[in-house]
Amino acid sequence: MEINGVTIEDTYAEAFPTWISRVIITAVTEEWAYRAATEATGFATSAIGCPCEAGIEAVLSCEETPDGRPGVSILICAGKKKLKEQIVERLAECVLTAATTSVFDGLPDAQEKLPIKLHFFGDGYEYQKEVGGRKCWVIPVMQGEYVGEEEFGIIKGVAGGNFFVMGENQMAALMGAQAAVDAIAGVCGVITSFPGGIVASGSKVGSNKYKFMPASTNEKYCPTLRDKVPDSKIPAGVNAAYEIVIDGLDEECVSEAMAAGIRAAVTVPGVKFISAGNFGGSLGPYKFELHKIL
Amino acid sequence: MEINGVTIEDTYAEAFPTWISRVIITAVTEEWAYRAATEATGFATSAIGCPCEAGIEAVLSCEETPDGRPGVSILICAGKKKLKEQIVERLAECVLTAATTSVFDGLPDAQEKLPIKLHFFGDGYEYQKEVGGRKCWVIPVMQGEYVGEEEFGIIKGVAGGNFFVMGENQMAALMGAQAAVDAIAGVCGVITSFPGGIVASGSKVGSNKYKFMPASTNEKYCPTLRDKVPDSKIPAGVNAAYEIVIDGLDEECVSEAMAAGIRAAVTVPGVKFISAGNFGGSLGPYKFELHKIL
Amino acid sequence: MEINGVTIEDTYAEAFPTWISRVIITAVTEEWAYRAATEATGFATSAIGCPCEAGIEAVLSCEETPDGRPGVSILICAGKKKLKEQIVERLAECVLTAATTSVFDGLPDAQEKLPIKLHFFGDGYEYQKEVGGRKCWVIPVMQGEYVGEEEFGIIKGVAGGNFFVMGENQMAALMGAQAAVDAIAGVCGVITSFPGGIVASGSKVGSNKYKFMPASTNEKYCPTLRDKVPDSKIPAGVNAAYEIVIDGLDEECVSEAMAAGIRAAVTVPGVKFISAGNFGGSLGPYKFELHKIL
Amino acid sequence: MEINGVTIEDTYAEAFPTWISRVIITAVTEEWAYRAATEATGFATSAIGCPCEAGIEAVLSCEETPDGRPGVSILICAGKKKLKEQIVERLAECVLTAATTSVFDGLPDAQEKLPIKLHFFGDGYEYQKEVGGRKCWVIPVMQGEYVGEEEFGIIKGVAGGNFFVMGENQMAALMGAQAAVDAIAGVCGVITSFPGGIVASGSKVGSNKYKFMPASTNEKYCPTLRDKVPDSKIPAGVNAAYEIVIDGLDEECVSEAMAAGIRAAVTVPGVKFISAGNFGGSLGPYKFELHKIL
Repeated sequence: MEINGVTIEDTYAEAFPTWISRVIITAVTEEWAYRAATEATGFATSAIGCPCEAGIEAVLSCEETPDGRPGVSILICAGKKKLKEQIVERLAECVLTAATTSVFDGLPDAQEKLPIKLHFFGDGYEYQKEVGGRKCWVIPVMQGEYVGEEEFGIIKGVAGGNFFVMGENQMAALMGAQAAVDAIAGVCGVITSFPGGIVASGSKVGSNKYKFMPASTNEKYCPTLRDKVPDSKIPAGVNAAYEIVIDGLDEECVSEAMAAGIRAAVTVPGVKFISAGNFGGSLGPYKFELHKIL
Repeated sequence: MEINGVTIEDTYAEAFPTWISRVIITAVTEEWAYRAATEATGFATSAIGCPCEAGIEAVLSCEETPDGRPGVSILICAGKKKLKEQIVERLAECVLTAATTSVFDGLPDAQEKLPIKLHFFGDGYEYQKEVGGRKCWVIPVMQGEYVGEEEFGIIKGVAGGNFFVMGENQMAALMGAQAAVDAIAGVCGVITSFPGGIVASGSKVGSNKYKFMPASTNEKYCPTLRDKVPDSKIPAGVNAAYEIVIDGLDEECVSEAMAAGIRAAVTVPGVKFISAGNFGGSLGPYKFELHKIL
Repeated sequence: MEINGVTIEDTYAEAFPTWISRVIITAVTEEWAYRAATEATGFATSAIGCPCEAGIEAVLSCEETPDGRPGVSILICAGKKKLKEQIVERLAECVLTAATTSVFDGLPDAQEKLPIKLHFFGDGYEYQKEVGGRKCWVIPVMQGEYVGEEEFGIIKGVAGGNFFVMGENQMAALMGAQAAVDAIAGVCGVITSFPGGIVASGSKVGSNKYKFMPASTNEKYCPTLRDKVPDSKIPAGVNAAYEIVIDGLDEECVSEAMAAGIRAAVTVPGVKFISAGNFGGSLGPYKFELHKIL
Repeated sequence: MEINGVTIEDTYAEAFPTWISRVIITAVTEEWAYRAATEATGFATSAIGCPCEAGIEAVLSCEETPDGRPGVSILICAGKKKLKEQIVERLAECVLTAATTSVFDGLPDAQEKLPIKLHFFGDGYEYQKEVGGRKCWVIPVMQGEYVGEEEFGIIKGVAGGNFFVMGENQMAALMGAQAAVDAIAGVCGVITSFPGGIVASGSKVGSNKYKFMPASTNEKYCPTLRDKVPDSKIPAGVNAAYEIVIDGLDEECVSEAMAAGIRAAVTVPGVKFISAGNFGGSLGPYKFELHKIL
């Protein structure tokens, strides 16, 4: 299959379940909501070495937020126990401390809820108040009062949706990946948790040489090793590859994000080949076949 | 003491020692260095609930980086053991994964060094190479090759330098704090690790009511509690306060940053009062007297 | 009328007709489209002293652009003759010169069209090509080839929709205005052409003292002159006012933008009063009554 | 000559004199100064079709500005008569209208001065005041008071310093040009006035086919025309070229900017060739020989 002269490999991305929370952060201006969201979703690229995966899902208009202020929604993804701990710490340290912010549950219809009790910070001076139909706690703080919801819906979502953008050189592949990330930013329900949304150094599980490593470079996808490793997956004419990893609320939005990203990547001159990563079905139950979703 | 009509309280900021590493991140463009730096310093506002404190120190010109590329320097602050773990994880997950980045030691003259062995990720395909006089490891990855140094100097620096910007209302105090952060951005050797550099909800150690809380709201500095708590520190006419917390390589740069920040804050209309936080000397050995540093 | 404790004056904004073109700028990434759009809409705040009024209307997803690339749409507003000249010069100097950009007509259903013949720049090497159903010219340039449409629909739209955000001090009014601009950014069909979308120095037509001036400060709306001029329009307790000026494709979208902006402004602490500017009907045929649109 | 494996052609950039003004814009925060500066320097890429050339020179720390606030300095370049008109209009429409801004002369030692009388906007309510040793006018406006200097030094500077970044494909050349612009941003006294600092469509004077055109595509530098035009200047293996055009206060800073930009460009993978544009000495008196400045 070819789009715009770029070969789309007949393969699939393999993904696995994760628990996800969506937190709506509002603030006096969009910029302040964005700053809090950026801090709260930092150090959260990959569950391999970070305590969770997190990212900014969308900028929200005032009409989309419970308090009518500008907002940003973020997704936080982890195992259930880790998820609670991470929501508590990231909201307590990165949002409650941020200027003018409030937080609201972005999955109010979820059946499962996590209690996130920030109001103890109020040391007894806190009180309850309804904002936009949400039961919130108000905590007196130095800037005045912090207001936020304390129960967050969680659902079982999808982690690890992915595709590879390969180019005739590094800059072509990188700009192709960037165009993909730009396109995915317009899709609801998903995040790309790596720096700038792009992975420069995709990994394989474990290591052949260093048994203590949980993950190591995926030599089959390293362009400089093409002639040194058997079964290289790097096609002739490709000299760089970037991976886009997508976490999302469900299969539909991950699939939509992959399609939007790939369609944007192939508009970039020098992009040559699109593929995706899977472990033959051993990693997880979700399969996103590139030819099907496009 | 008054500057520009704003009262500067005759008090001091109390700070304490911390171990600090400075990492230089370079990339193909400044933007890519900045993106990696942002991810690597996220979820790192306060050691109370985050695994470390970290932030962007400076944007570096090509002449200031070992490989002649655009760069950003970050500071990471923590206890010595935690510091090593955090540098490893943040560089491995947030910089090695980022497009086109390299890392270099930003404290090459420090006597103490931490080995940060990312090259095991190379699974045996890695090799050594000198870049700009620095001994680096080259790791084959999907984008081509990652290049980086693996030994980082650490020094004993200063954490918790601070001052409070108080205003006649919230927006005046916030913009005063923002002007302060803008000014501090021009000072070498320091970071302001909170979201946007500003703390909205300064805390006291422990809690009077909830014994399980390591920290809670500092009611003496809560404007809405002025008439409800004894010994409120909020002057008449003040309705909001923000704290700027500064970590830095030494007392001199923290002092310089505090002075630059305060001088900028008092140019903002509606800013009324500048103070600083201390615990009477019980917290740490460093004292920054506001009247002396200005 | 009060919203969120803020008085909305029972008055109206008066607006007048203008010719408008909407240009879709696409590029390899959103950032490059945005940069071209920023340059092309600069020096275009007010028709009083700038050659036109222009601004960024929206960021477009890849699905919304003719060539499937990331895009930005801009509006350019002026009298018909000036409009043609300004589109030619702004596209020729600020978009054709920008990296990887293409331009497309954003009002393809408009009955009136302006020919914007950039292809003469090709000096005979140019040729025609269809892109996304649009008849484009391809011009060989240093970066490779520029591709763009050369006929742009224009319609009679609305200029000068406006409202005033007044606050108890300058920072409160400014952040109220900023929240308004953030909200308006989410409304289709409109721009706010002033720097950051906000006017700090609203004017009246002509000058009482300097007859050679086409416009001068509107002393009735100057807080520092409240006690010095008769009929000051600044209410007690207000110490700063900002104006938001909106140009849009039709009355509906200007009305929607005004409502969204006002609703956001009144969420900001310290905002006290909302009004709007009119000249008693002498300026133009459009009236936007604040109480009606909210 | 080769740097980092990239050929530097033995040629020179030819530049010509221009009158230049440097305006310091300060504001309550760096962001507001930057927004005003962006608007004031828009639609100002090339004197061929824009009323002037202008751009942001530097972000200034609070210690570098007359009023101790965050600031941005811009350069505006044009013939002397046009320069005065453009400073007046750009300051009146894009800075006086912007929130919280002040303007100061950035060339106070220049022998020649232009009077820029914005204070007539005050309609008689204006008055004089000294700020940081500068004689300013204060104009009552809606946000409170505008403060600014009204005399601006101008000097004879250099326009049209330039070099070409050529790459094996478009994305490599573009990222090379971007790295160059990042490096030039750190050099004092210069601007790169095109969108994002980069020219995608360098021109020649006049047109062979369309006699009414003042400028047209430079076919000798068009990669797609390499085999169609005699004397193509595009080397084998090059498929895209971008031009960086630099205006600056004197030959030294233009030379320094060219050197910094070229050194950064050659670090980008896929960049193959660096050249520069001249018209055999017919355009202007300044010659910047690439081999000499590096």
